[in-house]
Amino acid sequence: MSSTLLSLIEKNARYADALDRFDLAAWKALFTADAVYRVQARENFERGLPLALMYLDGHGMMADRITAIEKTLVFAPRTTRHVMGAPVFVHEPGKDVTSRTPFSVFQVVGHAPPEILAVGFYDDEWIESTGGLILKRRTAVYDNALIPNSLVYPL
Amino acid sequence: MSSTLLSLIEKNARYADALDRFDLAAWKALFTADAVYRVQARENFERGLPLALMYLDGHGMMADRITAIEKTLVFAPRTTRHVMGAPVFVHEPGKDVTSRTPFSVFQVVGHAPPEILAVGFYDDEWIESTGGLILKRRTAVYDNALIPNSLVYPL
Amino acid sequence: MSSTLLSLIEKNARYADALDRFDLAAWKALFTADAVYRVQARENFERGLPLALMYLDGHGMMADRITAIEKTLVFAPRTTRHVMGAPVFVHEPGKDVTSRTPFSVFQVVGHAPPEILAVGFYDDEWIESTGGLILKRRTAVYDNALIPNSLVYPL
Repeated sequence: MSSTLLSLIEKNARYADALDRFDLAAWKALFTADAVYRVQARENFERGLPLALMYLDGHGMMADRITAIEKTLVFAPRTTRHVMGAPVFVHEPGKDVTSRTPFSVFQVVGHAPPEILAVGFYDDEWIESTGGLILKRRTAVYDNALIPNSLVYPL
Repeated sequence: MSSTLLSLIEKNARYADALDRFDLAAWKALFTADAVYRVQARENFERGLPLALMYLDGHGMMADRITAIEKTLVFAPRTTRHVMGAPVFVHEPGKDVTSRTPFSVFQVVGHAPPEILAVGFYDDEWIESTGGLILKRRTAVYDNALIPNSLVYPL
Repeated sequence: MSSTLLSLIEKNARYADALDRFDLAAWKALFTADAVYRVQARENFERGLPLALMYLDGHGMMADRITAIEKTLVFAPRTTRHVMGAPVFVHEPGKDVTSRTPFSVFQVVGHAPPEILAVGFYDDEWIESTGGLILKRRTAVYDNALIPNSLVYPL
């Protein structure tokens, strides 16, 4: 059980690091080819509604989004910083690992002071791969009713 | 020593998760039946003063508080999000484990952006039980001079 | 690998705890005698510029800074709170450990509500010592363009 906890902590750290370094290829590599990534308001998540701020079904859609971000969009000088807590998880033998991990994401836009972009939790499903645990599904559930800017970047 | 660190991280994660899901029964289950839970300003804690914003002595008082929260109080749509760091701890053979763990707690009220509810640390005493480490005493020490709202919910 | 991750988590927790308790001797003890500690804006760090908000080369300069903080400076009642995520690290056999760890640092000044002092990451180099991993180099890289107050205290 401890080794699962450590693996989840390690993979989550890589996830945060990839996003905050704008290394979207490394971010994508944390998902299986057919993984589903969503960003959803807590209210919709809890009611089981499909409405999502971002919905990427598999590496293809992830790659499209990455291209859009890297090639098309004009970024204001902006950085994000993910600080996560430790996950709670369920690991039944022979089954996938499911986990929930709380997150805070801060952003700095230009010369303004840091602000809270979002707080919430990741609701996840992981499977074992040759490189250890890998995301089959991640839903970034945010507590805030609104995300301050039109969100183009994964949470 | 590493296994103690991992156990503390795991239990703290469960604590955060229970509170942020409003699962107060799961929260209470992390304490021994005679555990003392307190919420205290840093100034009072450091001076050893008894003054506390919340003081719950044992499962009976915890259950009363839970009933009060669940049955009586009208909650504005509000969520909390606990993001903790890793603990520092002392584990002497044959003695209880004591630890300190830094926390940030964010809240979202209605449609307002996330705000910092409190930052501080947990000052804890744990004992071994059949289910692993369990809290015998937890004091949530907050750095802020004031808590933004009348605090009814545990930190 | 897991034991390196746990060691880094443990040492980082001690680092945060030392600073937030104003125990600068404990803070200094986490560095080798000839360690370099820097606080640098992300922009300068990424461009490889030497410009740093704080630059302490070895225990001697750290001790001077500590004396300056403890003896000379008049502190407004203020507390800091470090909440870090887990590190990503590289540990090649026979080489030093390098790591990056995201941080959020909050401060409380007088009776004001908590605010974000800085967010960013530690860029580190660790070596093995008798007491486990110890910092040979730490650069606290902050995302914010500005630090709210003239920074006298290590991040």
